Amino acid sequence: MSVEQETVEFEVGEQRQDYRFFTSIPTRWNDNDMLGHVNNVVYYSYFEAVVIQFLMQETAVDWVKGPVSPLAVETLCRFRRSLSFPMIVDAGLRVDKIGNTSVTYSIGLFPQDEDLISAYGHFVHVYVDRATEKPTPIPDDIRATYERFL
Amino acid sequence: MSVEQETVEFEVGEQRQDYRFFTSIPTRWNDNDMLGHVNNVVYYSYFEAVVIQFLMQETAVDWVKGPVSPLAVETLCRFRRSLSFPMIVDAGLRVDKIGNTSVTYSIGLFPQDEDLISAYGHFVHVYVDRATEKPTPIPDDIRATYERFL
Amino acid sequence: MSVEQETVEFEVGEQRQDYRFFTSIPTRWNDNDMLGHVNNVVYYSYFEAVVIQFLMQETAVDWVKGPVSPLAVETLCRFRRSLSFPMIVDAGLRVDKIGNTSVTYSIGLFPQDEDLISAYGHFVHVYVDRATEKPTPIPDDIRATYERFL
Amino acid sequence: MSVEQETVEFEVGEQRQDYRFFTSIPTRWNDNDMLGHVNNVVYYSYFEAVVIQFLMQETAVDWVKGPVSPLAVETLCRFRRSLSFPMIVDAGLRVDKIGNTSVTYSIGLFPQDEDLISAYGHFVHVYVDRATEKPTPIPDDIRATYERFL
Repeated sequence: MSVEQETVEFEVGEQRQDYRFFTSIPTRWNDNDMLGHVNNVVYYSYFEAVVIQFLMQETAVDWVKGPVSPLAVETLCRFRRSLSFPMIVDAGLRVDKIGNTSVTYSIGLFPQDEDLISAYGHFVHVYVDRATEKPTPIPDDIRATYERFL
Repeated sequence: MSVEQETVEFEVGEQRQDYRFFTSIPTRWNDNDMLGHVNNVVYYSYFEAVVIQFLMQETAVDWVKGPVSPLAVETLCRFRRSLSFPMIVDAGLRVDKIGNTSVTYSIGLFPQDEDLISAYGHFVHVYVDRATEKPTPIPDDIRATYERFL
Repeated sequence: MSVEQETVEFEVGEQRQDYRFFTSIPTRWNDNDMLGHVNNVVYYSYFEAVVIQFLMQETAVDWVKGPVSPLAVETLCRFRRSLSFPMIVDAGLRVDKIGNTSVTYSIGLFPQDEDLISAYGHFVHVYVDRATEKPTPIPDDIRATYERFL
Repeated sequence: MSVEQETVEFEVGEQRQDYRFFTSIPTRWNDNDMLGHVNNVVYYSYFEAVVIQFLMQETAVDWVKGPVSPLAVETLCRFRRSLSFPMIVDAGLRVDKIGNTSVTYSIGLFPQDEDLISAYGHFVHVYVDRATEKPTPIPDDIRATYERFL
C-alpha cells in the first residue's frame, strides 16, 4: 500500500535566540476557531507571513513576476501551546539548509514578550524557472543572503 | 543553536487506492492566491476537512465539548501539483499509525476524477483530557474505528 | 462631519422562489468563529461564491483577464438566523437591477432543505475597462443573460 | 416577487477626521486574491477588527460569555480604491447612531499615511440577552461610551 518511506529532519529551535529574523503579526478575531484558539491552519499563514516578509525585506526576489521564483514544496508545524486572539505573535525565521535549488527555513512562533515557543516547524522553497517550471539553482545574490541567516 | 534532531517518517500513498475514506471539497474563489493557485495554507484546511468529516461520520468524538478530545500536534504537507479554483478536491484519509494516546492520519488530495495526487501529508492527533489537558488513551470505541481504516 | 447622505434600496426576497440561480456551498470547520456560528465575514464569501458561479456558468465573462470585467463596488448583508458548520448552504441569486454600467444582484442564503432565509443582501458589480479602469457599458451578451435572471 | 422595500441611510465620512477611533491592521499575503488586491470579503474582517478592538479597548463588553452581548445584524461596504498586500490599513470607527437596543458604527479604511479613503461602510450591532436571544437595551455603561464616540 505504501510506496516509499520518507524522512524529514530539521533543526529545532525553541528559543528566540535560535532565530535570525522576526516579524510581528497581530492575530485576528476570526483566526480563532470554535475552541477559542487560533485554528491550526492559520499557523501556516503566520509561517507564510514571516517567509514573505523576509524575502521582501532582505532579498530582491519577485515571486509573483520574476523569471526565477521560489515555490513551496513542503511545510510542517508542531503545535506545543495554543495561540489565540487577542495576541501579537512574533514569528522567527532562520535559514536551516541551503541546497542547490532549495532552501529550508526553520520557523518558530512566540507570543509577544514570551520566550516559550508556541509552535515551530519548517518551510521548504524550491527555486523554479517560471517558464519551464523546472527547479533551477538559487540565484547567487539570494544564496548570499541565505548564508547570512544560517 | 539547535537543541535536538527530529525525524518524521510516514507512509506515502500516491494513489486513490491508498486511502480508505474520502470527502469532496469544492474550492472557493478566495482559496486562490495572487499566483492563481490554491494558497499553500489552504491545503491544510482541506486536510482538516477530511479529518473532521471522518471523525463526524465514523466516530462519536465530540471534540468541542467531550471530556476526551483530539488535539492536533503536528501536520505536514508536501506540494506536488497545484490545485486551483474552480475545482472539486477529493481528500483521502487512511489511518497510518495508532499509538496509546495518538493517531497519525495519512492524507492525500486529488483533483476530482484524477488519479494523480496533488499533495499529501499527515496529521497527528493526541487525545487529551479536557480538564487536565494531559494526554489520555484513545477511547476503545474510537480505537476500534481507527483499526478499520488502517 | 458627514459629507453626504446615501440611500440604499433593494428588493428583498425571503423565500427560495424569489431567487433564479442557486449554488450549494458546504460550510467548513473554520468558517465558524468562537461563538460556534459562521463568522459574519464568511457570509460574504458565500455571496461571492454564488456570483462567481453564476458568471462562470451563465456568461462568458473573464474577470481575471478579460478587457472588460466586473468590479465589486458595494456589498451588503443582513443577518437573520445563524448558519454554522456542519451544514450545506444554498445560495440564491437573482438580478435585481440592470443599469448602463452596473448590475445589482440580490442574494439569499438558506440552510439546505429549509425555506426560511438565514441572510440576504446585495452585491453590486460595475463593469470597467481593464486598461483605463473606467466604467464601461455592460457587454450586450452579458446584459441579455442578466435580463433572463431578473 | 419582492416582499418589501428597504432603505439604508448612513452618514459617510471620507476623511480621517470623520472617525473617532483607529486601529492598524497589517494586510496578509493571502488577503490578496487572484486579481492582486485584497479580496472584497476580507474588507469585512478589517471592519470586524476595528469594531472588536474598540469594544475591547473602550468597553467592558464580553461578547463571548457575557449575559448581554452584541450581535451583528447588518454590514455594508462600498469599495472605492483597492487595498493590497503589502500595506498597513488604518481602520477608523465612529458611532453613527445609538438606538434603544442597537448601535450603528460608521467605518472607514485608509492606507496608512494616506488621507484618501479606500472603502467605507457601516456595521450594526443589536444587543441581545444571551439566554433568550431577544434584543435588550444597550447597558448604560456601554451607551455612555458610545456617546463619547458619536
